[in-house]
Amino acid sequence: MDQKHQIMGTSQILSKAELLNHWQGHRRLTRKVIEAFPGDQLFTFSVGGMRPFADLAKEMLAIAVPGLQGIVDRTESDYEESQPDIKTKAQLLLRWDEATPHIDALFDQIPEADFHVSFNLFGQYNFPIIQNILYFIDNEIHHRAQGYVYLRALGIQPPFFWER
Amino acid sequence: MDQKHQIMGTSQILSKAELLNHWQGHRRLTRKVIEAFPGDQLFTFSVGGMRPFADLAKEMLAIAVPGLQGIVDRTESDYEESQPDIKTKAQLLLRWDEATPHIDALFDQIPEADFHVSFNLFGQYNFPIIQNILYFIDNEIHHRAQGYVYLRALGIQPPFFWER
Repeated sequence: MDQKHQIMGTSQILSKAELLNHWQGHRRLTRKVIEAFPGDQLFTFSVGGMRPFADLAKEMLAIAVPGLQGIVDRTESDYEESQPDIKTKAQLLLRWDEATPHIDALFDQIPEADFHVSFNLFGQYNFPIIQNILYFIDNEIHHRAQGYVYLRALGIQPPFFWER
Repeated sequence: MDQKHQIMGTSQILSKAELLNHWQGHRRLTRKVIEAFPGDQLFTFSVGGMRPFADLAKEMLAIAVPGLQGIVDRTESDYEESQPDIKTKAQLLLRWDEATPHIDALFDQIPEADFHVSFNLFGQYNFPIIQNILYFIDNEIHHRAQGYVYLRALGIQPPFFWER
């Protein structure tokens, strides 16, 4: 790649497809963490007064598709975490899998040029769209890692971090 | 931004400077987590047989500058985690702060066009450089989140996740 090409900025360090693939890779790992929990402890066990892992996974679900939908439609709907219909591990995994193609489809609708447009996500997080999406991923890694500690505290081997 | 501009690929979804800033923002948060630990428990406390947070922070230090140095020099040195000279919270924070400008300087030396060149990091992780660097950040978020659980288990309020 010649110097002029670089100066023109055509050398992307991360493409849109790569960012989506990166996120979906993390989601595949989170799914394995959900699967690793015994069905009851997924909804009840925690450390230090924190939320059980099912609640953390529900937060991820409440962010991913609704957040992307807001970005695509430019609607600033409130964040709605409660998903009382998810009561079992099977239901949680089903919802997780249902979200996967929705994320692909919604992400695809964000034009590349819009990633640096600011959007007031959930009516309260006014940042460039790239930062909002990086936050979705960071938040998932952060909460999933809490699930790793819960699993270790339960004497269960978590999935390898690099397995996506 | 017009259509032709987009087709030419000049619309970056994430610039090199933004990726560095994103990482350094996470490092500022990790620094706050180190600070939040009582000096002794930083080196001794853990949950579920995991490593104390000082060891997790040492891993981050063993990855950041040595990893970038390897990328810049294209040297495939082995990964070396042990840093026996770090024995106190003050020493750990000092090393953390010393790494900060080194990360800036080394990152700056990676040409944009190289982010999709594969490099065999530490002689064993052969991936495009962008993936190696995203892994550094993901690994830091992952281990830092374990520190959040340790702090909660100690009855200490961790820093807000969104504070960078």
